[in-house]
Amino acid sequence: MTYVRNAWYVAAWEQDLPADAPAAMSILGEPIVLWRAGEKLVAMEDRCVHRHAPLSLGRCEGASLRCMYHGLRFDADGRCVEIPGQELIPPTARVKTYPALAKHSWVWVWMGDPALADEALVPPAVGYDDPDYILGHGFLDYEAEARLINDNLLDFSHLSYVHAQSFGTGPEFAGSLPRITPLPRGIRYERWLEGTFGAAMRKSDVPLDSWQTYDFLIPGVLLMWSANYPPGTAKALGHSPPEKLDAIAGLNFTSQAVTPTGEGTARYFFSWGPHCKYGDEAMRDGMMALADRAFGEDKTMIEAQQKVIARDPERPVMPTAHDKGVTLFNRLVQRLAAEEAEARAAAA
Amino acid sequence: MTYVRNAWYVAAWEQDLPADAPAAMSILGEPIVLWRAGEKLVAMEDRCVHRHAPLSLGRCEGASLRCMYHGLRFDADGRCVEIPGQELIPPTARVKTYPALAKHSWVWVWMGDPALADEALVPPAVGYDDPDYILGHGFLDYEAEARLINDNLLDFSHLSYVHAQSFGTGPEFAGSLPRITPLPRGIRYERWLEGTFGAAMRKSDVPLDSWQTYDFLIPGVLLMWSANYPPGTAKALGHSPPEKLDAIAGLNFTSQAVTPTGEGTARYFFSWGPHCKYGDEAMRDGMMALADRAFGEDKTMIEAQQKVIARDPERPVMPTAHDKGVTLFNRLVQRLAAEEAEARAAAA
Amino acid sequence: MTYVRNAWYVAAWEQDLPADAPAAMSILGEPIVLWRAGEKLVAMEDRCVHRHAPLSLGRCEGASLRCMYHGLRFDADGRCVEIPGQELIPPTARVKTYPALAKHSWVWVWMGDPALADEALVPPAVGYDDPDYILGHGFLDYEAEARLINDNLLDFSHLSYVHAQSFGTGPEFAGSLPRITPLPRGIRYERWLEGTFGAAMRKSDVPLDSWQTYDFLIPGVLLMWSANYPPGTAKALGHSPPEKLDAIAGLNFTSQAVTPTGEGTARYFFSWGPHCKYGDEAMRDGMMALADRAFGEDKTMIEAQQKVIARDPERPVMPTAHDKGVTLFNRLVQRLAAEEAEARAAAA
Repeated sequence: MTYVRNAWYVAAWEQDLPADAPAAMSILGEPIVLWRAGEKLVAMEDRCVHRHAPLSLGRCEGASLRCMYHGLRFDADGRCVEIPGQELIPPTARVKTYPALAKHSWVWVWMGDPALADEALVPPAVGYDDPDYILGHGFLDYEAEARLINDNLLDFSHLSYVHAQSFGTGPEFAGSLPRITPLPRGIRYERWLEGTFGAAMRKSDVPLDSWQTYDFLIPGVLLMWSANYPPGTAKALGHSPPEKLDAIAGLNFTSQAVTPTGEGTARYFFSWGPHCKYGDEAMRDGMMALADRAFGEDKTMIEAQQKVIARDPERPVMPTAHDKGVTLFNRLVQRLAAEEAEARAAAA
Repeated sequence: MTYVRNAWYVAAWEQDLPADAPAAMSILGEPIVLWRAGEKLVAMEDRCVHRHAPLSLGRCEGASLRCMYHGLRFDADGRCVEIPGQELIPPTARVKTYPALAKHSWVWVWMGDPALADEALVPPAVGYDDPDYILGHGFLDYEAEARLINDNLLDFSHLSYVHAQSFGTGPEFAGSLPRITPLPRGIRYERWLEGTFGAAMRKSDVPLDSWQTYDFLIPGVLLMWSANYPPGTAKALGHSPPEKLDAIAGLNFTSQAVTPTGEGTARYFFSWGPHCKYGDEAMRDGMMALADRAFGEDKTMIEAQQKVIARDPERPVMPTAHDKGVTLFNRLVQRLAAEEAEARAAAA
Repeated sequence: MTYVRNAWYVAAWEQDLPADAPAAMSILGEPIVLWRAGEKLVAMEDRCVHRHAPLSLGRCEGASLRCMYHGLRFDADGRCVEIPGQELIPPTARVKTYPALAKHSWVWVWMGDPALADEALVPPAVGYDDPDYILGHGFLDYEAEARLINDNLLDFSHLSYVHAQSFGTGPEFAGSLPRITPLPRGIRYERWLEGTFGAAMRKSDVPLDSWQTYDFLIPGVLLMWSANYPPGTAKALGHSPPEKLDAIAGLNFTSQAVTPTGEGTARYFFSWGPHCKYGDEAMRDGMMALADRAFGEDKTMIEAQQKVIARDPERPVMPTAHDKGVTLFNRLVQRLAAEEAEARAAAA
């Protein structure tokens, strides 16, 4: 599978990374250890230079990380600073590091050329530290390619079928197409549902105009907000986007990120919850219970799809009208990956 | 492994296929979804043309099956008849179907050239719907090649050893050879045990002449009946087959079928029970309990054998006198498979 | 991985091999059945010549072993002596045997040229049958190459880190180097710790001189004894080895053996306990509880290391001063294996 390397990948929820212990992650098949050298967040190759023991079984010692197999110790730049029983430390004793930072409650790791790591390219997610929203969060490990999860998130018509018993979106949702706009590093989806009575989980007695928009950004980050407005709002706005806080109900936000961990595996991170003026912890808990059910439905479908594909990987797909976003995004990935390959070739 | 394709493979016990939901099966490594379009039994490739989601996770809607990923709907001929959000349906939007039918309580699928699918080639099994027999039934999944299970069923001398503690056939059983006759699509086994006191499970106080015969038919279907007769019957008949209903005890029937599901895996279907004039539900239940134990013994042995073979697949076997049926059947498979290959080459 | 074949490999603890039933083992990827033909211990290929069923599912019948698939019977030389239903036994009906013997509580199997199998090459382990020691014993199965476990045992500096919470050896242990001496078929380690107060598990109120020595022998057998002496002993002896029974405390012995079972798997056998003049069953039980914990720490580390290596097997290691023994032993393995290859080529 082709993935862009010059991108910030979500490696962890920040609160899942302890202050004083390393954590293991795998991104694009590369084993990575995450740890905190005091304030500095460090991502290094999860492999000691000595005999390839995983540093994620190591011990944080202040601003350094000690391998707990034979005791070699490394600083935040990956340099070996101690070899027990030996005075000389060869300069080659150095572990590869990756640019890393914490932002919007996520730990991000840059998998491409370190010289191009630009904090401005971190997708503008909403973290559980954002005071405006009351967000739950979690993650799911997939036995499936990240690309298949991306494809799922790039075509919400599956809500009418995969989630017929959870989100409860009726078939009319899949019957219409969202507005799709290319972004420099992603795709924007926008959709007014006019005069709807809501989905199973959020039935309304009166008709509403329901707005839903999300950006799906490189490498695989979905940022979505939705809200309900009085009937007629969509028409009055000429179907352009509304103001968030003009909503009369249901203003909520979800950040989701898909990280390819290895060949045919991925980790799917997600948060969801209401704006603080439109809901509370109880509403968040209800939404998370629903998300657990619905995201399990996705996992069942996508892992089964992965197995079918693995039997005959060369079989062509047959895109439909709903695949416009899938196609645009995958083309963007191909283009960016090709540009990266050209840049590497030019540098060599 | 070589298997014949122009043959009816058992795909399921008919009562295990619900009226209103699809079921997944795999035959010769091909994923298949079984479903009922009203009265018509349908077998199709278990892969949506759109993005390869398995149709076995789909929903039966009258005479059509809907993919529950993005909602494409297919009729009993595999034609796509609905694509949500899109009016035009391309003629290429069609899923491969297989000839399929239900007979003798089994669902059969034809894996070869559909033009050659001939209902007359369905082996004449006895189903649990047969009023003359009181049959229990079940199946076992194997981590072993179907051919190894076929080989097991083609050489009953293993009863004296694998089943020493269950069927309880003594070593004298393996000490003599059955009469073996080639059939156009299989092998016939016949055997009189004269003056026997029966096996552990069916001890007799007086000596009996015990008759056992089975056909083992392409692609891997065993149809066996056995019964006990007064001593002297075998000799009086010149060791030719007896009349079923002349038996004085123990008339029973078993249908068994071995279906290769994938590389190194198989599903083994079986029924067993007495003729209604020679037993009742209680006897059937006792026989099924015994079968569960004995077929588990086969599974243990054959799966272990598979692992040994997998370590060195090229190592030659050393056939014995009891392998006559094994050899004849496997030669038949090779010949039929070669004829199929020639026919495909001639057609191309 | 390269392993020496002309060597005695530990196949089992002798008491784990029943008197009247075969047992399965795998050495260097070869399936082996162990059984007792009366007094004679037999190791044969675990594969019936007939259809490759494992003989370890067979039945001991006096001085022969019967395959319980179709009943072929073999003697202690691997010769088939019975084929049910068949009078003639072809001379090719013979299963490969391996030289095997029981010694020092272990069952040993010679994996190389049988003509070179020399009982004198059995490493001089201390068995649980030795009256001088009170030994517990066990084994652990590894999802890791035997070589990685050998490497672990060839560099005890890991005690300071892997076992920081169990054996409790402090970092000063890894800070100094043992004396290392090559042996014809192994490496000898010797080390005085002078004026030590012991490790966490064996704290002492007064300083002691602690002695530890082990031989690590082809193919992967560790034989170690350690004991404590009055302070000043090391210096008085010019740091040469002490007499065992001059110890004032803590005289104990451990035998350990690493057997490669297959690609990336191994079985690790171990015993440990006090000399009968320095401890009792209760002390042995305490030591075994500690060993269970500590050897589990090794397993966690080494299996994790194996996974990291498997991602990129060609990545070079970076040996340190503590790797002297690792390097010497692995060179010895390479040299012996190359000599074996030359001998085979010359014989061909």
